[in-house]
Amino acid sequence: MIISQVSIGRTTLPDTITIRPVRASDFPAWSTLWDGYNAFYGRAGATALPAQITQMTWSRFFDGYEPVHALVAECDGVLLGLVHYIFHRNTSLIEPTCYLQDLFTVEAARGKGIGRSLINAVYERAKEAGATRVYWHTHETNSTAMTLYDKVAERSGFVVYRKLL
Amino acid sequence: MIISQVSIGRTTLPDTITIRPVRASDFPAWSTLWDGYNAFYGRAGATALPAQITQMTWSRFFDGYEPVHALVAECDGVLLGLVHYIFHRNTSLIEPTCYLQDLFTVEAARGKGIGRSLINAVYERAKEAGATRVYWHTHETNSTAMTLYDKVAERSGFVVYRKLL
Amino acid sequence: MIISQVSIGRTTLPDTITIRPVRASDFPAWSTLWDGYNAFYGRAGATALPAQITQMTWSRFFDGYEPVHALVAECDGVLLGLVHYIFHRNTSLIEPTCYLQDLFTVEAARGKGIGRSLINAVYERAKEAGATRVYWHTHETNSTAMTLYDKVAERSGFVVYRKLL
Amino acid sequence: MIISQVSIGRTTLPDTITIRPVRASDFPAWSTLWDGYNAFYGRAGATALPAQITQMTWSRFFDGYEPVHALVAECDGVLLGLVHYIFHRNTSLIEPTCYLQDLFTVEAARGKGIGRSLINAVYERAKEAGATRVYWHTHETNSTAMTLYDKVAERSGFVVYRKLL
Repeated sequence: MIISQVSIGRTTLPDTITIRPVRASDFPAWSTLWDGYNAFYGRAGATALPAQITQMTWSRFFDGYEPVHALVAECDGVLLGLVHYIFHRNTSLIEPTCYLQDLFTVEAARGKGIGRSLINAVYERAKEAGATRVYWHTHETNSTAMTLYDKVAERSGFVVYRKLL
Repeated sequence: MIISQVSIGRTTLPDTITIRPVRASDFPAWSTLWDGYNAFYGRAGATALPAQITQMTWSRFFDGYEPVHALVAECDGVLLGLVHYIFHRNTSLIEPTCYLQDLFTVEAARGKGIGRSLINAVYERAKEAGATRVYWHTHETNSTAMTLYDKVAERSGFVVYRKLL
Repeated sequence: MIISQVSIGRTTLPDTITIRPVRASDFPAWSTLWDGYNAFYGRAGATALPAQITQMTWSRFFDGYEPVHALVAECDGVLLGLVHYIFHRNTSLIEPTCYLQDLFTVEAARGKGIGRSLINAVYERAKEAGATRVYWHTHETNSTAMTLYDKVAERSGFVVYRKLL
Repeated sequence: MIISQVSIGRTTLPDTITIRPVRASDFPAWSTLWDGYNAFYGRAGATALPAQITQMTWSRFFDGYEPVHALVAECDGVLLGLVHYIFHRNTSLIEPTCYLQDLFTVEAARGKGIGRSLINAVYERAKEAGATRVYWHTHETNSTAMTLYDKVAERSGFVVYRKLL
């Protein structure tokens, strides 16, 4: 799917950027993006995400029983961004809900509408999968990301509590 | 499981309160709690949750294929509270994550540690189910609830974005 | 996907037959096929499959959280056949297994390779979904069906035991 | 759960045999049973089931998101048998169906009703999980097993076709 200027809005996404499901052959390029994403959240070096988690998550993208999906943004054969989303149950819905868990664009390609295109692509896929909602979490200090998020979604007013068991 | 004073901490939970999985025969009593919970979020009267969603969610509690669960707090045969939780995938975890979606105690029974006991019971069940994390969403203006949540979990600093499709 | 003569083998499948995922607008035509399939197994009239099961199964085809899928064979806008398949866990496999549960071709269109094309299409989709096996059940007296099945799969030597609870 | 003589029928199951869900600490004893079961199907030595499949299946028993379950028969702290079962969707049912995939009793303990008790325990658990059917596959030449199966279930007349992709 080529995301054109019209569907993007503010920014001009080069015609040559394609948003598509990840493929087995993407592993090295996807890994680099995934490491970059994790590093942003402090999961690097001594605190890096264990390789076996990466391996499991990667295998789930290709397992038709798992509701875990990945899309990538590709330009001239180079991966510039990723988005991961998961379908799960919700007690207030008959249909599935869609949790957009991870979104990342390489630093050099930011400001070109790639993040927005990846989010829009999740909206489309989620709709096709019968979902009526997409949600995600972002840190309250991440104002850069929120500049985009405020344009494509609404800040719900809900905050996340968490307990490590 | 009888939640005793010791496991609760600050408050004294009557010995006669039991936290247990919901049963088919609980439907009328559970419905009343569920309606009360939904009313709190403005889903009442003309904006009430459609009955068919309630029916589907209820049936999922008893479907061994669905990772959707409900516990209730019972005292002398009366249901005083409910908690619903769901297991789902997470790209940063091999094991499932636990989403505590709904928590409610009838107004007359508040301040007795029932909410806390329901949360603790979810922690136990989630641990048994291999989960290493429980998370939930609460509105940033719900300071009453946060007084409890700040004692049993941590406010993560993440906020929820949402898009209706 | 147009199933051409080459991929079919023995029979000539008209070029105009397409095997594709079922769509929401197919419901009336799919229902007729589904009723025909059920009638073959004696589920008609007084013993017909309850409408609410049909409704639930239909909705699962369009629910991205459910590993339940349907393909149809279409020719000149008319549905001539259906196949339903489900992914599920298997203790001897890391990847999912694929259960091809239902297969049906309208009587007037039999002997044209439609059944075989539907099975082949499931093989393709199952492979894409990471499955390494497809299995199904057929009655030991259904020699007509087995003539086809012996060409596209192997009779495993296993028989099915069943207990109604 | 102690399976008493009454619920067993023909044979006398020692009072000291307990059928219970597998626990993390059972791994070594369960492995021995699992290897014995696999050897029966020729999966031993050079054709043994890869260790990583055993590891994955084992971890699924303890993952609350996976509908994969294991029970064991224990006598005086020794495991004498195992049964594995899986819930999955079925296009003719709203509720889940239960696939009893593996059943094994150590040779020295056969003829004591352990296999039957394990099957009965699956029936109970499946019923609690809302399933209305349990099914399994057995080889048509396995007359020893079928002597038992004919007593606790019905041979459906269906045979299994299979395609390796």
